[in-house]
Amino acid sequence: MSELQEQQSHQIAFGWAATDSSGILHPFHFTRRANGENDITIKILYCGICHSDLHLIKNEFKISSYLIVPRHEIVGVVTQVGSKVQKFKVGDKAEWEIHISTIFDDGGDKNYGGFSDILVVDQHFAFSIPENLSAEGVAPLLGAGITVFSPMKFYGLDKPAMHVGVVGLGGLGPLAVEFAKAFGMKVTVISTSPGKKNEAIQHLEADSFILVMTSNMFCDCVTLEQAAMGTMDGIFDTVSPQHPLMPLLNLFKFNGKLTMLSGPGLEKQTELSIMPLIFDRKMVAGSSAGGMTETQEMLNFAAKQYVTADVEVISMDHVNKAMDRLAKGDVRYRFVVDIANTIRPQNSHQLVKLEY
Amino acid sequence: MSELQEQQSHQIAFGWAATDSSGILHPFHFTRRANGENDITIKILYCGICHSDLHLIKNEFKISSYLIVPRHEIVGVVTQVGSKVQKFKVGDKAEWEIHISTIFDDGGDKNYGGFSDILVVDQHFAFSIPENLSAEGVAPLLGAGITVFSPMKFYGLDKPAMHVGVVGLGGLGPLAVEFAKAFGMKVTVISTSPGKKNEAIQHLEADSFILVMTSNMFCDCVTLEQAAMGTMDGIFDTVSPQHPLMPLLNLFKFNGKLTMLSGPGLEKQTELSIMPLIFDRKMVAGSSAGGMTETQEMLNFAAKQYVTADVEVISMDHVNKAMDRLAKGDVRYRFVVDIANTIRPQNSHQLVKLEY
Repeated sequence: MSELQEQQSHQIAFGWAATDSSGILHPFHFTRRANGENDITIKILYCGICHSDLHLIKNEFKISSYLIVPRHEIVGVVTQVGSKVQKFKVGDKAEWEIHISTIFDDGGDKNYGGFSDILVVDQHFAFSIPENLSAEGVAPLLGAGITVFSPMKFYGLDKPAMHVGVVGLGGLGPLAVEFAKAFGMKVTVISTSPGKKNEAIQHLEADSFILVMTSNMFCDCVTLEQAAMGTMDGIFDTVSPQHPLMPLLNLFKFNGKLTMLSGPGLEKQTELSIMPLIFDRKMVAGSSAGGMTETQEMLNFAAKQYVTADVEVISMDHVNKAMDRLAKGDVRYRFVVDIANTIRPQNSHQLVKLEY
Repeated sequence: MSELQEQQSHQIAFGWAATDSSGILHPFHFTRRANGENDITIKILYCGICHSDLHLIKNEFKISSYLIVPRHEIVGVVTQVGSKVQKFKVGDKAEWEIHISTIFDDGGDKNYGGFSDILVVDQHFAFSIPENLSAEGVAPLLGAGITVFSPMKFYGLDKPAMHVGVVGLGGLGPLAVEFAKAFGMKVTVISTSPGKKNEAIQHLEADSFILVMTSNMFCDCVTLEQAAMGTMDGIFDTVSPQHPLMPLLNLFKFNGKLTMLSGPGLEKQTELSIMPLIFDRKMVAGSSAGGMTETQEMLNFAAKQYVTADVEVISMDHVNKAMDRLAKGDVRYRFVVDIANTIRPQNSHQLVKLEY
C-alpha cells in the first residue's frame, strides 16, 4: 500500500488511552478506518463513564488488551455517511454502543471508544436518539440504562402491579429506580446508607426505603429485619462488594427473581442456600448490557417517559480525577465527559503510531 | 353433636403413620370427613414414595407436624361423588396431588395422605388419569413427574432444538431424561457414578454422559473437564448433597438456566460466583412440584408420549424397609406401594382416636 493510499484509507483521530493496568489515561493520537459504504462517521459530543470502565482500564477481569480508549456511552453527530447507509444522514444525532462482548476483542478498531473526537461505526451498531432527550443525560442510558432496562424486560419485571427492590444507589441504582417507576411499579430502595433515604424518596421518588444495618447508627428507616418479608416480585442488585443474598431472597413472594447487575471479583464466592430457592421457585440470575433491538426500545421508552440520567459533566482533562472519584463512589450519579468542547489534540503526546 | 351425627359425618379409614421424627411408620386407624357436595371419595390403588417423604417423616425441614400419613403420589378409583361433582363419576380412575404447601398444614385432614385405604378430596384437587398409562407407573408422575416437567415448561426448556443436562439418576433424574427426550431435546446425563453410563445411554436413551470425577476410577466416560463447555441451554440438578455449581454453569451457552430440584439441608451454604452469571446472563433457580393446570397438562403429555416411571412395587408392610433403602439410594427408580392389595386394617393397633 502506498503512503497516499494509506492516508486515504484512514481518518486522523485523537483520544485519551490507558496504556497499562495503572488505569491512568493519556492523550493519544491514532487513526480510524476510512468511512466504508455501511459506516457512519460521528463527531463525538459526550461520552459517559461507567464503573465497568474502571474494571477495564485496570484489567480487573484479566481480559483487557492495551491500548484502550474508553468507552461505550457515546453521543455524537453524524458527519459522514457511506453509500449504503439509509438509517442516518449527515447532521443526525446518533449514539453508539460497543457491546461488552466486542470491546474486549483483540485490539482492532473496536478497542478505541468514545474518549476521542471522532468515531467510525457500522450503521447497524448506532442508535437514533429521540430528540426530546438531552445529549449529556442520554449518554449513560447506553451503559447503565440498558443494563437495568434489559433484565426488567427479559425477566418480566415490568408490570405496573409489581413491587421491586433496587439494592444500592450508585451508578446503576438511580436509573433502575427511574425505569421501574416509569413502568409503573412500586419501588423500594435497599441500602446500607441511612443518608440515601431522602435521595431515594424525595429525589428519585421511590415508594419506600429499607436500611441494611451495618452499624448501630440511629436512623428512622425500616431495617431488613423489620421489612415485610414476601412482598417483592424482583430485586435488582447493583452493589459490587460481596454481600449476603439470603436477606434479599426473604423479601420475595413466590417466583421472586434476584438479578445481579454487579458483583465482586471472580475469586470471591457468595454463599447461597439452595432449599429456599426450591420451596418458592426463587431465582438468582445475572445480566449485563443488552441487545441492539432492546437498546433502541429502551431509548424510545426513555423518551416517552422522560427518563434520563442525573449526570455531572466534566472536561476531558479531568477524566483521571473523575476515575479516582468514581472508584470512591463520589459521583451523583454518572460522569459524562463533554468531549466536543474540551478535547484538544496535543501533537507532542503521540504515544503510539498504529500499524495497519 | 350426637354420637350418631358424628358417625355420619365421618368415614372410617386405615393407614400407616409416622408419629415422631424417628420416621418409622405404624398402622393407624383414623377417620376422614364425610363426602361433601364437591368431594370425591377414592379407593386408593397405589401410592408412590418420594424422597421428600423421608424429609417429611423425619422432620428434616423442621416443619413437620405429627401424626403424618404419607403421602402424595396417589392413584385410586372413585367410589363416591358429591352432588355438585361433575368432573368425575363413580368408577373413574383419579390421581390426587397434595401440594407441598398444603401437606405441611396444621394437622387437619390434609396431613393424612395416600398410605391409607381411602381418601376424601375436593374434586378440584384430583386429576384424570389417561387410560393408556399403567396405574402403578403413573403414580410417581405426580411427585417426580411434575417436579421435572414444571421447570421445563416454566423456564422454556422444552424446545426440540435445545440441549439440556440432567444431574443425577436418583428418583427425579430418570423422569427428567424421559420428559426431556419426549420434548425432543438433546439430553446429557451428568453423574458421579461411571456405572450410570449404560443406564443413561442404553436404558433411558440419553444422548450423552458426562462423568463428574470424584476418584481416580478408570472409566470410558467424558469428564466435566473434557466436556464441551458452552453447549447447554439448561440443566436440571436432582442431587441433594452439597456440590459445586460452577462446573455446571460452565456447560452453559448464553442465557443458560440451572434449575435445582433438590438440595442440601437448610444450614448448608453453596458457593456461587456472581460475575459469570452477569457476563452470560446465566441463572440459578429452584423449583418444586407444580400447579393444578400444569399437572393435568403433564399427565396428558405423558399419555401422548408414553412417559411413565420405572417403579418397584412393594407391599404396605414393607414400607419401612423401602424407606431405609430409599435413604441409601437403593431403588430403580421409584417405590410404589400396592395399597389396594396389601393394606390390612389391624384393629389392635389403633394409635390415635382423632377428635373433630
